[in-house]
Amino acid sequence: MTPPETQTRMRAEIEQQPAALRATLDALLPRVSEVAALARDTRQVLFIARGTSDNAAVYGSYLAQVRAGRLATLASPSVATTYRARLDLNGVLAVALSQSGRTEEIVHTMTWAADCGARTMAITNGAGSPLAAQADLAFVTEAGVEQAVPATKTFTTQLAALAVLGLGLTADAEGAATSQTPVDQNELKNVPDEIERLLAAPGDLTPLIEGLAAVEGAVVSGRGYAYSAALELALKLKEACYLHAMGLSFADLLHGPIAVVDQRTPAVIMAADAGPTVEGAVALAERVTQSGAPAYGIGGGPELAAQCTYALPGPRLPEWLAPIGLIIAGQLLTEALARRLDLDPDHPRGLSKVTQTE
Amino acid sequence: MTPPETQTRMRAEIEQQPAALRATLDALLPRVSEVAALARDTRQVLFIARGTSDNAAVYGSYLAQVRAGRLATLASPSVATTYRARLDLNGVLAVALSQSGRTEEIVHTMTWAADCGARTMAITNGAGSPLAAQADLAFVTEAGVEQAVPATKTFTTQLAALAVLGLGLTADAEGAATSQTPVDQNELKNVPDEIERLLAAPGDLTPLIEGLAAVEGAVVSGRGYAYSAALELALKLKEACYLHAMGLSFADLLHGPIAVVDQRTPAVIMAADAGPTVEGAVALAERVTQSGAPAYGIGGGPELAAQCTYALPGPRLPEWLAPIGLIIAGQLLTEALARRLDLDPDHPRGLSKVTQTE
Repeated sequence: MTPPETQTRMRAEIEQQPAALRATLDALLPRVSEVAALARDTRQVLFIARGTSDNAAVYGSYLAQVRAGRLATLASPSVATTYRARLDLNGVLAVALSQSGRTEEIVHTMTWAADCGARTMAITNGAGSPLAAQADLAFVTEAGVEQAVPATKTFTTQLAALAVLGLGLTADAEGAATSQTPVDQNELKNVPDEIERLLAAPGDLTPLIEGLAAVEGAVVSGRGYAYSAALELALKLKEACYLHAMGLSFADLLHGPIAVVDQRTPAVIMAADAGPTVEGAVALAERVTQSGAPAYGIGGGPELAAQCTYALPGPRLPEWLAPIGLIIAGQLLTEALARRLDLDPDHPRGLSKVTQTE
Repeated sequence: MTPPETQTRMRAEIEQQPAALRATLDALLPRVSEVAALARDTRQVLFIARGTSDNAAVYGSYLAQVRAGRLATLASPSVATTYRARLDLNGVLAVALSQSGRTEEIVHTMTWAADCGARTMAITNGAGSPLAAQADLAFVTEAGVEQAVPATKTFTTQLAALAVLGLGLTADAEGAATSQTPVDQNELKNVPDEIERLLAAPGDLTPLIEGLAAVEGAVVSGRGYAYSAALELALKLKEACYLHAMGLSFADLLHGPIAVVDQRTPAVIMAADAGPTVEGAVALAERVTQSGAPAYGIGGGPELAAQCTYALPGPRLPEWLAPIGLIIAGQLLTEALARRLDLDPDHPRGLSKVTQTE
């Protein structure tokens, strides 16, 4: 890859992620027991978010369910804001995510959840924001100022904060809030170094950039933990590259949308290098290439790479942390594809940094 | 519209919907109290579904929350099937939707939910299917045999079954399972007649067909109840017309994906003729047309039509029932657009009628 003559802000912020992740983990890992204490009297997690934060919430929902054995789902904010419904949310831990902490819809829905009986937690990059101020517990990520409109370091630090939330829920489930889970904590602490390594050696993105530059749309698919990274890459490609990118889980894709995949609609398939979703990723890649469409892999180990038209290496991280690394390739791809298309990734048309929805 | 020389099965099945809806309501409306009894000891609803059924579940989640004041969310089946997680689902009413009742992933996830402590209900068109047999309560829709791969009458009858579920949840919330809610029941009973009227006078679809025939992708947007119809139309356009159709709520659209909307990426905006989502639909149409992209309305009353490049009339139904009518225009559009593109809507490439996912 030829470096851009003037580096974009998005590219600079992508490179800042190892430092942002280290600072975030340094700030939040000591607070695992606070999550455990808050979660103690709750039986499930309800995430409240929009946009990129919603994709982070999908990651959080798998962490809570698969690792901590606690039902976790995503809220429909309009139930609170548009319909002003009154629900019984006793026993619910409502976790609101907003990078700015100032999106009114999210602040409103979190305070509504509290009024309905929920305990509340905020995950935000906005220290002193209304969201942080009004939550029972606030996790502030240490991403620093993000100027490019497409979120990068605020997203991966959200994922890191959610991983800490997951540790807290697990500690609570084990009935020992103060118990340490050294293996998990060490795996999580290793993430910034691995992101640094990936950024230094992301593989050759050119075939993927040229493949997507030639088409108007693509399917981006993942399953389980990696589904969050697939949704986030699809969002990035829509907002910065104006690509018709459709984010779908493997299973949802097979229930109809697979028909859309063809030579001019390739599939990007994301998976951790190991774990129970690799088999489905490989089967999907096989089905896509047999239909004559290109399949591009990100991660999924040698099995997925072997079935793909082209594949980029994934992070050397356990499955539960892989999305933090999988999206790195997606960010680099988005930034480079936007420039390849003569677009400014820092300033997509029609968008501003803080989105207000009601 | 010129009628096709040989009518497609999809078109015939679209026309069968008034009769299918009447038969379904005749079978299920007398069973409101069974839902109320089943729901009595539960505090929330967890829907289990994929594909078209997942879009129906979105409708059900608004019914349960907005009308019955009960938390309702969508399950991630892979938590059960891929990760084999064990959750505490006591107090949960798990509602599994599958048209065939034979998708293994859905049957497996429903039985998993029962093992985790949930009460279970099936909504299926498959009488005698494994899903119907294994649920605590089974609602079998009376759509008859559906042969075209894109679901039409099995979808709208699912919505009708969910409306009955909503009546049952409301009856339970009022602490009177046997109480009648005559206004609601009469509104629901009126739906088949209104669908018949819409099918007889759907408006001129030609501008919408020609507009979508000229592009490779589109955004389809709705909010609240109508969000389910938007997701379903986006799915139909992907599977039968191979259009890059992206289904998004108004709010999610504004958090990034709005950038993708342009002259070659129009927006289809769906809303009930009245209710709290009309204002947002109008504002979205204004933003889309101001950016130079076409905005096509379905429903939304005269306010939405006035802001759109072109608009089709919506159903004369209250907001909570409007999705059953809104999708009719979407079905007619999908079937006609597929033929316009020389595609066979009955047999999209790469799909079969019963999808097996694990």
